[in-house]
Amino acid sequence: MAQKNLEALFLHNLKDIYFAEQQMLKTLPLLAEAAESEELRSAFETHLSETEVQITRLEEIFGMVGEKPQGVTCEAILGLIKEGQGTLAEFKGGEAAEAALIAVAQAIEHYEIARYGTLKAWAEQLDLSEAADLLEESLEEETDTDELLTDLAEAAINREAL
Amino acid sequence: MAQKNLEALFLHNLKDIYFAEQQMLKTLPLLAEAAESEELRSAFETHLSETEVQITRLEEIFGMVGEKPQGVTCEAILGLIKEGQGTLAEFKGGEAAEAALIAVAQAIEHYEIARYGTLKAWAEQLDLSEAADLLEESLEEETDTDELLTDLAEAAINREAL
Repeated sequence: MAQKNLEALFLHNLKDIYFAEQQMLKTLPLLAEAAESEELRSAFETHLSETEVQITRLEEIFGMVGEKPQGVTCEAILGLIKEGQGTLAEFKGGEAAEAALIAVAQAIEHYEIARYGTLKAWAEQLDLSEAADLLEESLEEETDTDELLTDLAEAAINREAL
Repeated sequence: MAQKNLEALFLHNLKDIYFAEQQMLKTLPLLAEAAESEELRSAFETHLSETEVQITRLEEIFGMVGEKPQGVTCEAILGLIKEGQGTLAEFKGGEAAEAALIAVAQAIEHYEIARYGTLKAWAEQLDLSEAADLLEESLEEETDTDELLTDLAEAAINREAL
């Protein structure tokens, strides 16, 4: 794995998203707590359960490529979370708090969508078809979560407008 | 604009993406320079021109809401760029360099897709229909760039596999 080939790149990004998902295990409960509506809280709680499964899938994939599950610091997710914390603190208690919260979560979802999409394509190329299937499952969950958040954002904005 | 309402949130995120796009003005030439294939270099150069137009659109929108164009530090884009630089340095010169480069760019594109999508929805809610149209144009450019990068990634991976 010392070579700078696609296999090494796949492993590098596997470690990256493994770290990122573990950060989300800590962050999603805070997002759920900050949610005002029951629907949004429930969406974050559901996604927390999905995240636990996604981490298990990543661990399976590490096993498939003969590696021990291990994260590498993912500056992107740390930046996304840091920025999100700033926005949430600024808009907390205000009428746009829920919209701010959803926007923070959607930026994070999009990061994960980009990563899982790339990893899935690389897995296919590396003939890791079982890994590709697992990555596709996680990708679908992230995409579904993003779509649900879009719906909830619309509802939240409309509530605020009333 | 001192209130924590949707108008303030819209302005906050406008400043965020304004800062992010300016970072991309500096970053895209480096990505273009690192590209091995003519197609990828050209894709980054085209997106650099689009980014210049996107910045002009954001400045128009600042004008529409009676504000001076101004950025706020966007920790997310800084994290994405920092992580990208690390990955590029690690895989530079290797056979997966092009795939690594595209993955870095796609993570950034997805951040911008999330931001423009949110801003557009808020602009509609705030009855800023002209702003919403401008944001939609930028959103489409980001989405098209992401799709083009997906195609180029497939081509790059297939070339490496030969």
